[in-house]
Amino acid sequence: MLDGLIISIDAMGGDESPDIVIKGIEYFLTHEGEGRRARFLLHGDAELLAPLLDTAPRTRERSEVFHTDKTVSMEDKPSQALRKGKGSSMWNSVAAVKGGRAGVVVSAGNTGAFMAMSKLQLRAKQGVQRPALAASWPNMSGKMTVVLDVGANVECDAAQLTEFAILGEAYFRAIYGEERPSVGLLNVGTEEGKGNAVVKIAHERLSQSQLGLNYKGFVEGYDISQGNVDVVVTDGFTGNVALKTAEGTAKLVDSLVKTALLGNIWSKFTSALNSIALRRLRKGLDPRRVNGAVFLGLNGIAVKSHGGTDAIGFSNALNIAIGLAETDFQGALDERLNALHDEDDNIGFIT
Amino acid sequence: MLDGLIISIDAMGGDESPDIVIKGIEYFLTHEGEGRRARFLLHGDAELLAPLLDTAPRTRERSEVFHTDKTVSMEDKPSQALRKGKGSSMWNSVAAVKGGRAGVVVSAGNTGAFMAMSKLQLRAKQGVQRPALAASWPNMSGKMTVVLDVGANVECDAAQLTEFAILGEAYFRAIYGEERPSVGLLNVGTEEGKGNAVVKIAHERLSQSQLGLNYKGFVEGYDISQGNVDVVVTDGFTGNVALKTAEGTAKLVDSLVKTALLGNIWSKFTSALNSIALRRLRKGLDPRRVNGAVFLGLNGIAVKSHGGTDAIGFSNALNIAIGLAETDFQGALDERLNALHDEDDNIGFIT
Repeated sequence: MLDGLIISIDAMGGDESPDIVIKGIEYFLTHEGEGRRARFLLHGDAELLAPLLDTAPRTRERSEVFHTDKTVSMEDKPSQALRKGKGSSMWNSVAAVKGGRAGVVVSAGNTGAFMAMSKLQLRAKQGVQRPALAASWPNMSGKMTVVLDVGANVECDAAQLTEFAILGEAYFRAIYGEERPSVGLLNVGTEEGKGNAVVKIAHERLSQSQLGLNYKGFVEGYDISQGNVDVVVTDGFTGNVALKTAEGTAKLVDSLVKTALLGNIWSKFTSALNSIALRRLRKGLDPRRVNGAVFLGLNGIAVKSHGGTDAIGFSNALNIAIGLAETDFQGALDERLNALHDEDDNIGFIT
Repeated sequence: MLDGLIISIDAMGGDESPDIVIKGIEYFLTHEGEGRRARFLLHGDAELLAPLLDTAPRTRERSEVFHTDKTVSMEDKPSQALRKGKGSSMWNSVAAVKGGRAGVVVSAGNTGAFMAMSKLQLRAKQGVQRPALAASWPNMSGKMTVVLDVGANVECDAAQLTEFAILGEAYFRAIYGEERPSVGLLNVGTEEGKGNAVVKIAHERLSQSQLGLNYKGFVEGYDISQGNVDVVVTDGFTGNVALKTAEGTAKLVDSLVKTALLGNIWSKFTSALNSIALRRLRKGLDPRRVNGAVFLGLNGIAVKSHGGTDAIGFSNALNIAIGLAETDFQGALDERLNALHDEDDNIGFIT
């Protein structure tokens, strides 16, 4: 019988599963989660998992394996995964949350399939039209900016953007402990009257609200990396493009730095010293640090680790999962959503 | 009487005009445009321009001043600018292109006002529903990626995206001399079936085309900085957010590099060497290098320099302006647009 925080794991999800998954849990238990009472339900191929658990004693002690030899591949379309993926490690890992056997599920598998299975099994919370995927991005202040939606909904209306503001704010508070996270609405300019119809209506709705939201109005793409607000709200199309553009730009600059520092004869002498500096730089931009997108607005918490991550990255996704499971994230969110929709009714907000 | 390439200049546009504008032209004539027969029509306050021209002999020799004391401020809304900005330096600089007295207009002033005035006076080309703003972004291959639209149209349909592909391709060819620039459509994933309705229809239309377009299908935000295609087509909302996100990320990484290289005691010794390397890095990312967004699809060429640029940045905007004026950009574009719309008629494309 497991007690404490129980985390359901899709042990077969990701490019190098189940290897990275088990190493990630072991890393977490060794470096991050020692004092935390987390336990794990491992869904996957028992035969593959057994030898890995032999090399990961902390994980073995705190885990229970639930065998299935069915997996969802990284190439499956969400519709295919739903059709033929029942009983797979991914499906079962979500089912454990639905059945109340775990508080949160973590998968490094196929994002579309994971979202589809989570949505189908866990269902959207009452008061949430569309769950949203929230990701964290490092910013100038050394903290993180949460951006949502980053890909769950490629078309959104104003009421959905308003809900995303509530979801993102509650998430930021739970994870980073900020009492009143600031929220901005992504637009092409900060002046009133800028943008398309959807953001204009959402802006009006959020500005009118008496919920005590720390709403800062419109922000621009530039503000994501500057950290001018804690939470950036946008539709899943724009958010996905913004996040991937930021990733591409960070990689470009990283490559230019390398070229610049190694490109002249003098810098050859200093490259050992530079490499220390560059290691520190890369730590600041480490994709593992920002690993773990959360699917918000479901009856249950679903955390998506990057498919190509390593053990440290997977461990960070566990950190986020446990951070949410440890707080009363879902209860606090319900309260906020109810208050929002009471207000909707009072002001007659329909989009 | 002026001959050769005639460029109409809004001498009062930008944060530090007319100073930067005159210095920019002088820089261009000294370093970039010596052999080019460019001449300039300077629209602005003659009293302010006279002492500046005294210190810029090359510019004075090749310019004619058209006095107006009316200016458009950086804060004016486009509608205000249209209402009260007739006869301003910006208005008159566009009017010179409309009247055939210049081939191209360059302004570092208020972007919204400049687009509105250009659109009103120059009008969209036949076969163009909506002109688009195209910007260049440095990429991994050391070349530039052209992204459009980056802010002229916050809502776009599939037919407009298709036209943007033609506009962007013709622009890339004219400026960078590439015979068959590759074109990608910005989306949240590269697989068929991804994205919203608009990009799906535009993708189908572009895939069907027999125009010989080098269309590569969907690309993601990541691909902009990687340079995987030459031209990235998107709506003005997404494009604006993407470009500003990229700018913010580049600034973040630049700041992290500085901190990393100066943050430890050893690197103090190497900072002189590093500063050489960093200068080279900054050159690669120099915003002045990418200065000059072009408003494409009008009967006339309008180039928007960044409002906060310096002389070198303004000079680069002139480079783009002259690059377009020197080729038969507009004629070639008309041909492509006609071919596109003939094909539209043949396949019965309506959105």
